[in-house]
Amino acid sequence: MQNSGESAEDRLIARYFRPLATHPGAYGLTDDAAAITPPAGCDLVLKTDGVIAGVHFFPDEPPENIGRKALRMNLSDLAAKGAKPLGFLMSVALPQAIDEGWLEAFAGGLGEDAKRYQCPLLGGDTDRTPGPISVSIAAVGVVPHGRMVRRSTAKSGDAVVVTGTIGDAALGLKLRRDPSVADRWGMSRAMAAYLLHRYQLPEPRNALAEAVLHNASAAIDVSDGLFGDFAKLCRGSSVAAEIEVGCVPLSEAARAAIAAEPALIETILTGGDDYEIILTLRPERLDDLRAAASAAGAVVTEIGRVHAGEGVHFVQDGRALEFARPAYSHF
Amino acid sequence: MQNSGESAEDRLIARYFRPLATHPGAYGLTDDAAAITPPAGCDLVLKTDGVIAGVHFFPDEPPENIGRKALRMNLSDLAAKGAKPLGFLMSVALPQAIDEGWLEAFAGGLGEDAKRYQCPLLGGDTDRTPGPISVSIAAVGVVPHGRMVRRSTAKSGDAVVVTGTIGDAALGLKLRRDPSVADRWGMSRAMAAYLLHRYQLPEPRNALAEAVLHNASAAIDVSDGLFGDFAKLCRGSSVAAEIEVGCVPLSEAARAAIAAEPALIETILTGGDDYEIILTLRPERLDDLRAAASAAGAVVTEIGRVHAGEGVHFVQDGRALEFARPAYSHF
Repeated sequence: MQNSGESAEDRLIARYFRPLATHPGAYGLTDDAAAITPPAGCDLVLKTDGVIAGVHFFPDEPPENIGRKALRMNLSDLAAKGAKPLGFLMSVALPQAIDEGWLEAFAGGLGEDAKRYQCPLLGGDTDRTPGPISVSIAAVGVVPHGRMVRRSTAKSGDAVVVTGTIGDAALGLKLRRDPSVADRWGMSRAMAAYLLHRYQLPEPRNALAEAVLHNASAAIDVSDGLFGDFAKLCRGSSVAAEIEVGCVPLSEAARAAIAAEPALIETILTGGDDYEIILTLRPERLDDLRAAASAAGAVVTEIGRVHAGEGVHFVQDGRALEFARPAYSHF
Repeated sequence: MQNSGESAEDRLIARYFRPLATHPGAYGLTDDAAAITPPAGCDLVLKTDGVIAGVHFFPDEPPENIGRKALRMNLSDLAAKGAKPLGFLMSVALPQAIDEGWLEAFAGGLGEDAKRYQCPLLGGDTDRTPGPISVSIAAVGVVPHGRMVRRSTAKSGDAVVVTGTIGDAALGLKLRRDPSVADRWGMSRAMAAYLLHRYQLPEPRNALAEAVLHNASAAIDVSDGLFGDFAKLCRGSSVAAEIEVGCVPLSEAARAAIAAEPALIETILTGGDDYEIILTLRPERLDDLRAAASAAGAVVTEIGRVHAGEGVHFVQDGRALEFARPAYSHF
């Protein structure tokens, strides 16, 4: 005469995560899997990435930022591939000490982004862990059939364009580790806060995904540093490129930091967490891309050219820069 | 004049994981995302689940089993939903102490299963962690449009059927924790090894996915215990059910354990990790299901009936069993 009621896990999921599961195929997270009908004539673009406390974010990061950052990292990849978000799956591992207040803030922040980027939760897995908080996301996007923007299709003669500004997050991370550098950089509070925010909560360029799809010959999102990620694109495309460092778009705060400490140019060009897009395209498409970016309220900047050969050269005052630590690697 | 070479992370991925990425849309893991063309007229079935060392497996588990178990947990959900595997994404977090030998064994085991279940790797994310090993998988399957087998669609009068045998993994876990129980259960070495193996490396019933698709009115995979998972199905379907405990299929080893210690019936019916399927269907479809199972080399057993009302009753010798701990919950 026994009826197994809902478990504590079921109640947590229903309370905090069900509101994010607005896609009808997620069945309100009441089934074991989601079922989605792909739009006709489209391919699905699949990506997974995640964050671990103490590795990708500081353990005292406000919970409302943690899931958002994990989601945005994946959204940035979808944008660089020209894909429109369809939804995401999420695996969360939580230490015993996590309470319902934490979960409420975590899910609240994530829910705002799910709405903002029209990327609902499709399903998830919630576990206790003896280790640090970890959030892994698998994002699903759509592109017209055969049209995912690749890394390996840049051509000699293409222009190189980057979205937004570069290096803010890497400088923000330095500030987060040692707030006293703001004084050394002669930086206002507002500038320091701007850089910190760019590190904590990147803004993926999903508003430009369609412009990337229609104009790019190749693209990659800038997550491990402009130099390292663009070098991957060139290697994958078997081309070389020259980037004019003076053209790389910098925020006012980044310009202030460099003015005080010129060596920061390496941090800016090789640091991670930008979540901008670097793309190549035929020069005759530049006007179209600029118009689309402007319509989306975003800035795109031409920073160099692709040519035949091998290697990426970042040129400043006529000399190629050499970097001590070209890109972030976990291994 | 600098060319950023491949990072250590890129080399590890190319060496150990690229061989698993046999789907053309995975681009040999050389792009930032996978692009897959969904089969015409199909829905995609999406599921994520994972394992953490010390929570879902013992820290000294052979590495070749760890990724496989994570993959099989997800494959089992696809099977219960009637879906055919298409591929999977994987996030792996590894402590610093993990070496290349470990990775080789891990990827080797996983690769065998990717081939066996025709479920190639589509993409992944590899990180270092200060915490325990963790593997999170997001699996993608396909079903004909609108046909995913749900949890919530069982009907009064349906027969209840379970695949394989129940309780072996829960008994295997007891043996893994305390090998001396094998003597108490008067069990041969072969029987104990069988139960342990069922815990370490479950065999998801993907060979029965098509039979489930064509015959089931509702289904769920048995991962948190037969009682708890079937209670979820009945709650979701707003029906009641009566299960004849004497009909629940048990292995020879499980029967030996129960003969020695009758109270183990609770472990068997409520313990997790079976990765069998419990399904409901119109009784007139039983013969078709049995024939399909037999053709696939699997066994299915009728264990009860669905009726109107609320609650799941497991009946033994005319009395309903009461369970002290009805199902596994992480919270």
